[in-house]
Amino acid sequence: MSAPATAREIHLVAYPKGMPTPEMYKIVDAPVREPGEGEILMRVIWMSVDPYMRGRMNPHVKSYIPPFQLNEPLDGGAVGQVVASNNPKFAAGDYVVGFAGGWREYYTGPADGFTKVDPAMAPLSAYLGALGMPGITAWVGLTQILEPKEGDVLFVSGAAGAVGSMVGQLGKIKGCKVIGSAGSPEKCQWLTDELGFDVALNYKDYANSTELTKALATAAGKGGVDCYFENVGGMHLEAALNVIAFGGRIAMCGMIAGYNATAPEPGPYNLMNVIGRGVKIQGFIVSNYMHLAKDFYAEAGPLLAAGKIHYKETVYYGLENAPAAFNGLFEGANTGKAVVRVGPDSL
Amino acid sequence: MSAPATAREIHLVAYPKGMPTPEMYKIVDAPVREPGEGEILMRVIWMSVDPYMRGRMNPHVKSYIPPFQLNEPLDGGAVGQVVASNNPKFAAGDYVVGFAGGWREYYTGPADGFTKVDPAMAPLSAYLGALGMPGITAWVGLTQILEPKEGDVLFVSGAAGAVGSMVGQLGKIKGCKVIGSAGSPEKCQWLTDELGFDVALNYKDYANSTELTKALATAAGKGGVDCYFENVGGMHLEAALNVIAFGGRIAMCGMIAGYNATAPEPGPYNLMNVIGRGVKIQGFIVSNYMHLAKDFYAEAGPLLAAGKIHYKETVYYGLENAPAAFNGLFEGANTGKAVVRVGPDSL
Repeated sequence: MSAPATAREIHLVAYPKGMPTPEMYKIVDAPVREPGEGEILMRVIWMSVDPYMRGRMNPHVKSYIPPFQLNEPLDGGAVGQVVASNNPKFAAGDYVVGFAGGWREYYTGPADGFTKVDPAMAPLSAYLGALGMPGITAWVGLTQILEPKEGDVLFVSGAAGAVGSMVGQLGKIKGCKVIGSAGSPEKCQWLTDELGFDVALNYKDYANSTELTKALATAAGKGGVDCYFENVGGMHLEAALNVIAFGGRIAMCGMIAGYNATAPEPGPYNLMNVIGRGVKIQGFIVSNYMHLAKDFYAEAGPLLAAGKIHYKETVYYGLENAPAAFNGLFEGANTGKAVVRVGPDSL
Repeated sequence: MSAPATAREIHLVAYPKGMPTPEMYKIVDAPVREPGEGEILMRVIWMSVDPYMRGRMNPHVKSYIPPFQLNEPLDGGAVGQVVASNNPKFAAGDYVVGFAGGWREYYTGPADGFTKVDPAMAPLSAYLGALGMPGITAWVGLTQILEPKEGDVLFVSGAAGAVGSMVGQLGKIKGCKVIGSAGSPEKCQWLTDELGFDVALNYKDYANSTELTKALATAAGKGGVDCYFENVGGMHLEAALNVIAFGGRIAMCGMIAGYNATAPEPGPYNLMNVIGRGVKIQGFIVSNYMHLAKDFYAEAGPLLAAGKIHYKETVYYGLENAPAAFNGLFEGANTGKAVVRVGPDSL
């Protein structure tokens, strides 16, 4: 097994204002370095694009995840094969998934956060989706924050995305009434017909939070929404707070509606409901919960293997199409998990 | 002991838009009814005005506390003396405090939520403040939601109010660095010189959330604000979210800045920090925590008795001045607990 002398990687050369544009990126042919002490050299097969990466393109945000640096390769989750290892945990030939290594053809660097995966157990790309970071994110928000009881009404926005589709399915398995919102009739149909959601709302049918509130209130029924898994923000959050139940919980995972705003957008007008109804809002970043990953695999692994959880992928081919895959997240172009096939492998 | 045939009570005759006005109220001379089964008849000595009452003047809000009804007496916390009792727990002559019975000279009704108090232990009015609902509110938010560790930075808005002044003092006792905001130099001086706050910010010195953020960041130091006790909302919440620490907690008790707004006001522009910094926001209404009242008394009672917790009262004399006392809450006219002396007693 060997690596070429140089390989392509995508650098960020300017921070975006609003929706990312092609000029922000530069494809660079860079030397492929041998692994140093404790490092691995990995050939990337699949890379992930995820909404949280947009946050890392804002240079001055104080967050658990630091901003991307200009004129450096972007980074993110990737699955690949170890070409050379200077780390006792990995050997050449191993298939691995990591939080680092994306946006390039070859990764040389620390092996922290990398895990061996078995291509016979699941398609490799699943380790970036249902069996990977989005799956764990869904599980953490549901089990560690929302803690739904049987019969609770669970609302999830961005429900046809990688995280949202897992949230809803896990919610159904836990006995919730599940309402999802998505941005097209096809996505909504997938949610109800294939994933078993009780109600799917096409948010584009609603002009504002008042209209969305009415639809959500009807879907939720008299008791309102007990648990809200927040991926979107904007009118979704306002509608959820309008119909939130007494003692309701909100797991705040993302607010994608505002990620490409060119000016800051205000929060909801009805935050007082948080007080009057005794609501808990808990924001979270999945990397702070990775010590629970084994509990996630123990619960979700068998469900996936048994076909009780479904997932979809939107696949982009070729590293050069990673920027398009990324923008697709914000344009509603993707259903399920968006992944980029970097290598030619068929695994 | 006997009651007059009729006595005064204050009715709400119109729901306010914006700041309450005198036309909303009507003083009515009403028959004093004998207590029915399980009821008590109480002569009111002190009544409380509290910010949450403004929320009950909005007729269409879904909250744990129902709205006030028009052409009925307003209601609220009161301390008084039992004149006649049809309840085995109370006897004529007992001094009692309850969540009901305010805004009138005599109360006849259920004794639920009433407790006997000892005028020799503390001045009766204290049972509406430091030893009453505001004290319990402060204690609940601090101990059940914020759970500060020694050395944490605690920020409390509305710090010179009945709740805020208790929050800060209890925070100091728990080893926090305490920052408070209030609306005048005199109030700020009281916070630092008498109550032991580390820093007091006069929020009127800051034109907007950006300016308040800078002052708060300087006061908090590099680690930011670990715990925020929210009484005010508006630019206070936005500034707190700008400097909130990783894993920070916000106890959402009130948002008085917006209570008299004539149009809904937007939430903060920086809610994304809740996600990026893994922040918990928990709204609460103290009436859901009354099962913990005995724990509060066990902790706060000795501290008050030993003079380790201080409090102030702003006293209004005469039932007819209750509306002025109430508006004083929103105008920054009161320091510490605002109470109305209804009866002529000197207790």
